[in-house]
Amino acid sequence: MSILVVGSVALDTVETPFDRREDALGGSAMYFSVAASFFSHVYLVGVVGNDFPEEAISLLKDRNVDLEGLQVEEGQTFRWEGRYHYDMNNRDTLDTQLNVFETFSPRIPEKYKSADLLFLANIHPSLQLEVLDQIKSPKLVITDTMNLWIDTSRPELMKVISHTDILLISDSEARQLTDEPSLVKAAKILLSEGPEYLIIKKGEHGAMMVGRNSIFFAPGFPLEEVIDPTGAGDVFAGGLVGYLDSVDEFNETALRQGIIYGSALASFNVENFSLDRLKKLTREEIDARYQEFKNLTTFETA
Amino acid sequence: MSILVVGSVALDTVETPFDRREDALGGSAMYFSVAASFFSHVYLVGVVGNDFPEEAISLLKDRNVDLEGLQVEEGQTFRWEGRYHYDMNNRDTLDTQLNVFETFSPRIPEKYKSADLLFLANIHPSLQLEVLDQIKSPKLVITDTMNLWIDTSRPELMKVISHTDILLISDSEARQLTDEPSLVKAAKILLSEGPEYLIIKKGEHGAMMVGRNSIFFAPGFPLEEVIDPTGAGDVFAGGLVGYLDSVDEFNETALRQGIIYGSALASFNVENFSLDRLKKLTREEIDARYQEFKNLTTFETA
Repeated sequence: MSILVVGSVALDTVETPFDRREDALGGSAMYFSVAASFFSHVYLVGVVGNDFPEEAISLLKDRNVDLEGLQVEEGQTFRWEGRYHYDMNNRDTLDTQLNVFETFSPRIPEKYKSADLLFLANIHPSLQLEVLDQIKSPKLVITDTMNLWIDTSRPELMKVISHTDILLISDSEARQLTDEPSLVKAAKILLSEGPEYLIIKKGEHGAMMVGRNSIFFAPGFPLEEVIDPTGAGDVFAGGLVGYLDSVDEFNETALRQGIIYGSALASFNVENFSLDRLKKLTREEIDARYQEFKNLTTFETA
Repeated sequence: MSILVVGSVALDTVETPFDRREDALGGSAMYFSVAASFFSHVYLVGVVGNDFPEEAISLLKDRNVDLEGLQVEEGQTFRWEGRYHYDMNNRDTLDTQLNVFETFSPRIPEKYKSADLLFLANIHPSLQLEVLDQIKSPKLVITDTMNLWIDTSRPELMKVISHTDILLISDSEARQLTDEPSLVKAAKILLSEGPEYLIIKKGEHGAMMVGRNSIFFAPGFPLEEVIDPTGAGDVFAGGLVGYLDSVDEFNETALRQGIIYGSALASFNVENFSLDRLKKLTREEIDARYQEFKNLTTFETA
């Protein structure tokens, strides 16, 4: 079993109402890989500059992430800077420096091409299409995106979606992409474009999976304190896709359980900056939180 | 088993982006009573003017709601007018005419005073305190409130809360009342004021119950179309309190199931204006939706 992820690897400067970190490890592929590595073997395709810290490479190697596809280019690593509002649910981007990411073209190593699952992290839809062209026949294509591509590259994004089995999208993006305020109607419109399932991320309100004949809800885990929400969506995806690959099942039950594992991992990730919490996380802690999710939603005694 | 509710009975003019109704039946006690009547026997205390339609009286009588406590005064019934935004989650109040409600003083008929459960619907906290003074020893006091009383009558509201077993409150009201952005922390602060349980209403995102040692989540039912959200919170309360009274159990399991019944009823109520959907609703439909809630949240096969 193996998962191919193509996405960004970045150094983030994050400011919350209470604290600040500079040049912390980040990027969609980075968060995804570390999260998925708790369940399965990850092939990472991305690009960094020659300023990328050795410590980050060690972290990925320790988590058994394959780095043959991580291009190291002359120049600076992609940098993002953002500031969270008081409620921690909204943020402003203060600065984006693409650096080596500006000319990134995903090159997929030969041994990656037979990966079982393909995760297209949030990068330009044209790059996502380049990846799809190079990959043989993954069992599942899981795609993430963002509002920027809906605004600037809708035709390319719709083409990616037509090749997607499971689309991850936020509630506001689903409404924006379909121009439909009802989330259930928006989901149905997007399902008609190709995907078998839509997983709608609702931040602190959890996630909702919509299939052709079913809907599933996972709550957001009730935390007393959120330290840094950055990467929560990518960690959620890593837990979900990692779990699916580990059980090698893609039916409704596996998907529901994968969403709970993804939610569990995301709930840990926001407990500290960057990947600091995931670095120390154990499989036992993940399984304990999975059980807590069960206690959160059960209303009938067995 | 019996429930005493004290609250408003009103004629509402409601405008949505798609439709409009004038002088439709409304008010917190009205919505609550009809919802609770699917499970138990309701004693209603409120006031109407002599313009209150005979049809509404018949509806309540048909649902076996006891009306000895419904005062009919010379003058006009309380009127509220509101307009919903495009997303149907937010609304503006366009007009409020208190009319006979302005001088309302709750008079509790003797036979009501031994009611098992007391629901203090959203009215001025001073009136809620007047009711508490007249009631012997209900098994449970369930209280609802709104942002207006947090702004204008905080000391009285805190006194009501100290006599409350289960407090219903919206997420924004819980944050406002405690000045605490974390909902879990806000809940703990409010629990320290007296209640055993807090039920936090999150609109389309469902409801969350916080006890001293547990948290429970109920999703919002995924509807393709919401026609009129008015009264959803009161109907939710009616389903919850009605169910609790019918099983005469107030443990955690009963509360969780009550929240699902309340959510089921609320999801029906928003499918049409005023009480139009509840008028036609059957117990079989309610039980079927309860099962659908189970399917929405289950992620482990038995």
